[in-house]
Amino acid sequence: MSEQTPLDPAAGDSADLPGGDPFGLPEGDPFGPHNLPYGVFSLAGEADGRRRVGVRLGSYVLDAGAAAAALGSPYVSLLARTTLNPLLAAGRRAWSDVRRALTAWVTVPAHREAVRPLLHPLSDVTLHLPFEVADYVDFYASEHHASNLGQMFRPDAPSPLTPNWKHLPIGYHGRSGTVVVSGTDVVRPTGQRKSPADPVPVFGPSVRLDIEAEVGFVVGASSEQGTAVPLADFREHVFGLTLLNDWSARDIQAWEYVPLGPFLGKSFATSVSAWITPLEALDSARIAPPERTHQLLPYLDDSAESAADEPGGYDLRMTVTLNGQVISEPPFSTVYWTAAQQLAHMTVNGASLRTGDLYGSGTVSGPEPGQFGSLIEMTWNGRDPLELPDGKRTFLEDGDVVTLSAWAPGPNGTKVGLGEVTGRIAAAR
Amino acid sequence: MSEQTPLDPAAGDSADLPGGDPFGLPEGDPFGPHNLPYGVFSLAGEADGRRRVGVRLGSYVLDAGAAAAALGSPYVSLLARTTLNPLLAAGRRAWSDVRRALTAWVTVPAHREAVRPLLHPLSDVTLHLPFEVADYVDFYASEHHASNLGQMFRPDAPSPLTPNWKHLPIGYHGRSGTVVVSGTDVVRPTGQRKSPADPVPVFGPSVRLDIEAEVGFVVGASSEQGTAVPLADFREHVFGLTLLNDWSARDIQAWEYVPLGPFLGKSFATSVSAWITPLEALDSARIAPPERTHQLLPYLDDSAESAADEPGGYDLRMTVTLNGQVISEPPFSTVYWTAAQQLAHMTVNGASLRTGDLYGSGTVSGPEPGQFGSLIEMTWNGRDPLELPDGKRTFLEDGDVVTLSAWAPGPNGTKVGLGEVTGRIAAAR
Repeated sequence: MSEQTPLDPAAGDSADLPGGDPFGLPEGDPFGPHNLPYGVFSLAGEADGRRRVGVRLGSYVLDAGAAAAALGSPYVSLLARTTLNPLLAAGRRAWSDVRRALTAWVTVPAHREAVRPLLHPLSDVTLHLPFEVADYVDFYASEHHASNLGQMFRPDAPSPLTPNWKHLPIGYHGRSGTVVVSGTDVVRPTGQRKSPADPVPVFGPSVRLDIEAEVGFVVGASSEQGTAVPLADFREHVFGLTLLNDWSARDIQAWEYVPLGPFLGKSFATSVSAWITPLEALDSARIAPPERTHQLLPYLDDSAESAADEPGGYDLRMTVTLNGQVISEPPFSTVYWTAAQQLAHMTVNGASLRTGDLYGSGTVSGPEPGQFGSLIEMTWNGRDPLELPDGKRTFLEDGDVVTLSAWAPGPNGTKVGLGEVTGRIAAAR
Repeated sequence: MSEQTPLDPAAGDSADLPGGDPFGLPEGDPFGPHNLPYGVFSLAGEADGRRRVGVRLGSYVLDAGAAAAALGSPYVSLLARTTLNPLLAAGRRAWSDVRRALTAWVTVPAHREAVRPLLHPLSDVTLHLPFEVADYVDFYASEHHASNLGQMFRPDAPSPLTPNWKHLPIGYHGRSGTVVVSGTDVVRPTGQRKSPADPVPVFGPSVRLDIEAEVGFVVGASSEQGTAVPLADFREHVFGLTLLNDWSARDIQAWEYVPLGPFLGKSFATSVSAWITPLEALDSARIAPPERTHQLLPYLDDSAESAADEPGGYDLRMTVTLNGQVISEPPFSTVYWTAAQQLAHMTVNGASLRTGDLYGSGTVSGPEPGQFGSLIEMTWNGRDPLELPDGKRTFLEDGDVVTLSAWAPGPNGTKVGLGEVTGRIAAAR
């Protein structure tokens, strides 16, 4: 295991220090003006705790609504708000226009002087859940992850994948009310579990608490109930993405999930980053998804898109740390089903989209052991504990801190940093 | 099959006609002053379509916010709103106080004269989804329903119920963004299906479109993430109930649901009544649930409550009509898991409740064939078609209209009517 990555917060995302020049970012800073993710913050010193839309630049956050007002921008109505939802609802053209304006404000010298007083060091702000989550759906889109679980739990099946897996992106609805922002403690869930050796179920705090390292996609523009959203309209509806940790209690889930799927094993908490990266910041990271092994039905067939300029995949290099130690580096590029396919599938039955819908990729696992996105895979269902400086781990212990971070290739050899998502396990209540 | 019940809308819920005396209800009207369910309406003649909180009295609706203002009531802040959410959030004491005030307004002669101009015939209003749905969960709480499906789909299993069924109320999250109000057309969903005879999945409109006759519970008061809500606190959190039709595409569901549960087979639409019946209106309908055959873990054990004055069950007599013909009369009293147990289970892992959370009982089926709550049970997976005046039915055809209605025992031998939920199947787009 290696030490912390440069993107780890304790090491500092960027070399500029609070109090320095917010525009004096080192060359290639992953949160430079080519990135500009959106969040919602309040100022630590303000009694009323008013929430404001912010845009991250290095280790500063720009008060975007105040900047729009100061510069007489027409986008003040989208930015001088307490959540990102109005901006999300405004649609793709507005997203482009606002991003172009923000880029100018932090790069054009005259504008820089106007907005300089509106940049706050991250150390002076509290970050909040950046949007109101409407529906939350979680997919199961990594072939390596699904195969690993199939091998563990259905060793006698003819294939580790279920027969439907290569025909549709399997997904299910999760609990949107328990989506929390990075930094929120996660209370260990309590519930029923029953191992084959138990004559009846036992009750207590989960003893197999796990992570799932995922990427979450945030829907901006809504759609009409009864009407499907085609593959090609992905970028009309999806605003951006975030890292996502779908905390999972494997023991609770194993006992409850037949026949209607995961419920309490997942619903206690899902963590997302405080920063939503707009898709436009990731144009240089777009790649073709893995080769398809089955002919897909037309509504999912992205072979034409992959050959053209809508490749569907994203090259995101993820890192998972546990108490500061890197324990895995899952490559999002290996995920079989793309976010565009997930969106097309989710709506093919006429289900509508709402502003603020969030959907997760499912656990991202690459083909190699050092690339798995969950502890159940890393430890092969507890058989092979991780060796950490503070002891062995199969599943999470109270006090453990898990952090997901990632970067993507940016323009001209730069990196685009994704906002980290971190959480500490608190003891069961 | 019998003709329409007296609660069917076409037959009129109540004998008073629009234009008559709204206070001249016949003795025992199921929507009399002992009921007073809540909804949200707009006036057909108003250009701005402003939404208002309403309370149903016979075939009239009282503009509750205007009434509160006219009478100088302190509850104007809860009632002069566009959704029920502020009232829901206010908590149990406020629910009681507001209900007491409303009862006085429609029964005390002096108040009656003040509110008379604020009563609108139902024929003059448009009814809307009465609350903003936060999370939607669907349970599987009827033993007869679960046993029927087990017999159909797992005929060789040792028991028609899965091993967990008697130990916990099985549930899963559904799509809250596609919950629609009674009267909304349901567009036939399209998707993948694959019968064992098909070499690959086929795509098209569902050919096994079904209903699920359920009761939905509406959460008012929220709870803190990380903390369980005990059985005894059910009435502190749940405001009221509604009939619910969880439309289901059996062919889509059968192909997709292993291993993560129902998704597109359900997410296209869920219909609820325009009227939310407060739990206080149903005090005379409270009964003990069916006898428990297994010792329950303490957080679900309601044997003490059942013996005391918190019995947990509700005696609701449901009727399902298809194109005006009664096809089933499911008794809610036979449902194994109570709404209080469902709430305790849903939160035992620390999942928080939000105002507007909705959870369904799952299909309500009694032990007899005339009491099943879904077509797949009524026709035994299509083997025994229903004989209707307009032809045979296994699953729903375009143009079919399904209506759920119900009543419960009220005080002094009265009936409490539940608002119906109806929907027509529109052709796939």
